[in-house]
Amino acid sequence: MKMKAAVMTEVGGRLSIQEVDLAEPKANEVLVKILATGVCHSDLNAVHDANTPIPTILGHEGAGIVVEVGPNVKTVQVGDKVALSWVPFCGTCEFCQTGQVNLCESAFGPMFAGTLLDGTSRLSVGGQVVYHNSLLSTFAEYTVVPEMSCVKLPQNMPAAEASLIGCGVATGFGAAVRAAQVTPGSTVAIFGIGGVGVNAIQGARVAGASKIIACDLKDQNLEIARTFGATHTVNVGEGNTVDALKDLTGGYGVHFAIDCTGNTQAASTAWQGTRKGGTTVVIGAFNPQRELSLPAGGFHRVGKVLKGSFYGDVHPFRDFPLIAQLYLDGKFQLDELVLSRIQLEDINQAFDGFHDHSSVNVGRTVIEFTDRKLDKVAAYATEYIS
Amino acid sequence: MKMKAAVMTEVGGRLSIQEVDLAEPKANEVLVKILATGVCHSDLNAVHDANTPIPTILGHEGAGIVVEVGPNVKTVQVGDKVALSWVPFCGTCEFCQTGQVNLCESAFGPMFAGTLLDGTSRLSVGGQVVYHNSLLSTFAEYTVVPEMSCVKLPQNMPAAEASLIGCGVATGFGAAVRAAQVTPGSTVAIFGIGGVGVNAIQGARVAGASKIIACDLKDQNLEIARTFGATHTVNVGEGNTVDALKDLTGGYGVHFAIDCTGNTQAASTAWQGTRKGGTTVVIGAFNPQRELSLPAGGFHRVGKVLKGSFYGDVHPFRDFPLIAQLYLDGKFQLDELVLSRIQLEDINQAFDGFHDHSSVNVGRTVIEFTDRKLDKVAAYATEYIS
Repeated sequence: MKMKAAVMTEVGGRLSIQEVDLAEPKANEVLVKILATGVCHSDLNAVHDANTPIPTILGHEGAGIVVEVGPNVKTVQVGDKVALSWVPFCGTCEFCQTGQVNLCESAFGPMFAGTLLDGTSRLSVGGQVVYHNSLLSTFAEYTVVPEMSCVKLPQNMPAAEASLIGCGVATGFGAAVRAAQVTPGSTVAIFGIGGVGVNAIQGARVAGASKIIACDLKDQNLEIARTFGATHTVNVGEGNTVDALKDLTGGYGVHFAIDCTGNTQAASTAWQGTRKGGTTVVIGAFNPQRELSLPAGGFHRVGKVLKGSFYGDVHPFRDFPLIAQLYLDGKFQLDELVLSRIQLEDINQAFDGFHDHSSVNVGRTVIEFTDRKLDKVAAYATEYIS
Repeated sequence: MKMKAAVMTEVGGRLSIQEVDLAEPKANEVLVKILATGVCHSDLNAVHDANTPIPTILGHEGAGIVVEVGPNVKTVQVGDKVALSWVPFCGTCEFCQTGQVNLCESAFGPMFAGTLLDGTSRLSVGGQVVYHNSLLSTFAEYTVVPEMSCVKLPQNMPAAEASLIGCGVATGFGAAVRAAQVTPGSTVAIFGIGGVGVNAIQGARVAGASKIIACDLKDQNLEIARTFGATHTVNVGEGNTVDALKDLTGGYGVHFAIDCTGNTQAASTAWQGTRKGGTTVVIGAFNPQRELSLPAGGFHRVGKVLKGSFYGDVHPFRDFPLIAQLYLDGKFQLDELVLSRIQLEDINQAFDGFHDHSSVNVGRTVIEFTDRKLDKVAAYATEYIS
């Protein structure tokens, strides 16, 4: 089929809107009509990364409607509303077999090669291959994705909000709920208030934490944190953060700390700010040149846990519908993450927006492919009829 | 009452056998007739530690018979065979209330002060106070200890083997079974084959690990490790240990690593030798001047857990009887940990033995206060009658 897509044709350049050929889904693949797609900072990184296979269609935060399924697809059918995950899994490896689907490595080879799981592309222009990105390539009217990237949501889930679930939302939610396993009544510190951090705050809130302490260098971010459920804030640039966390927790330190900064020093501070027996989850990507250093004195005696977590230990098929339902029930904020809504033709504006550092960095520009009002009417109709 | 005990009267000196006055147990205390007590390397450290309150009676690995209980004691009665724990717990603090009794701090103040939990001593010579050690002071014919240090065992448990449960045995067993939570079929690496390490090996064996890989600098220790259940050995002084662990586990690394070395570099190597999603437990005490450094590259992506553990996350009232029963059922080796049996009068020989570095370091000299043969007859009689 022919479709319109934003194509990256050169490193560091502007995306161009082109007509692209999209082949049919093969076995275990799904053709999805994109309804909305978020523009992530990782897309900006990809634009400037000489290792990105080009030409390519970027975009890895998407939601849409299933319009065709390839052979052997079992979990979705035509008409289903779906959110997409950029971490598909094979279901058969060492890690999938033990429920750690977020650690499955099946996606990484294709991800770096710019293909789908079978090592080939469904995308082309004039017979020349166009590469996939993150196995999703959502900056397009349609996409063919692995079945295990394609998670059915409630039909009345609005598309823009749904499109954000599969990246920072799931990662932050999962960091608190799955990786840290925050418990009701516990105290939680979230380091780094960005697109992941605010959702870790929300995850802690959903899990029933009694104190949620946002930690960041910027007061503006700390204010935003409160709107997502932080009960206390600590500016880590002012005073001793470990002491501040202890002061807020009866001298003990927090039960759980979640580090979303990607900064090894912040992660060490987070660990030091937990109480005996506490758990620290590292969700951010560190600079590989660094070392993560922890004070060794009394290390065994304090009985603390330090845990790295990829994709928030999320299982997309369990957690995406859960997050969507929490949103529909008014228990999880996603509207606030949609900072602006644009059309595909204006996508380069979204990239320009990343350079405006005065803007808040927790939300997203979302590209919509459908009339927002019609989407709302459809959602209302579904709810009203059911 | 009057009793015989080995008293430390000067730092670095010999212990002297003296007649010591022992007061009656107060509320929540128990008077125990010691049947056997192990001599631990920590006792040697205490002898040479200027901070040890003196005069004192050392010894923190003991088993005996309850001969009197103070008011409000509920868990033991006169005649019970007990093993002693040097980590009593209050039952009411933040940590005890959440089942983390090994993290209770009630014992630490009294431990450093050389008293029982109420801040006073039951020991004296000629009206002059003699200090307790580790709230146990088992180098004596009798001792008064906190009820929560006094764990009832099966009556047919032999005393020498019982005396060792409360220190390195419980710590090693707990490191594998409680802290790491080794699962059946999993692969486990144990770093540092000493008094704790061999029991971590045994814990991993009891938990059903399929491969138990002993890692140490000394081939002699690695040979001993095999006699406790290690299925493979790696001399960490030869070649790349991480590669060796991967080679033994299909390229993945082990599911669980337990570091008993107290060496930060070994702990880092252990962490690197686990697979994605793997767990490393640090049970050894690091030099407080050091830092524990882990490679930061991909830290979040590999989803590993690093956990400090004090006393192997053991709950004495759950785990001491379990270990004793495993021993009685032939599933846990304790006889092999008793390297020699001496009388109290010969205690200084045991300390001299620590300086003989050519000897194996996994076992203990045990001081016995009863005729070994009579003890075995009594155990047989109990089993035969029941």
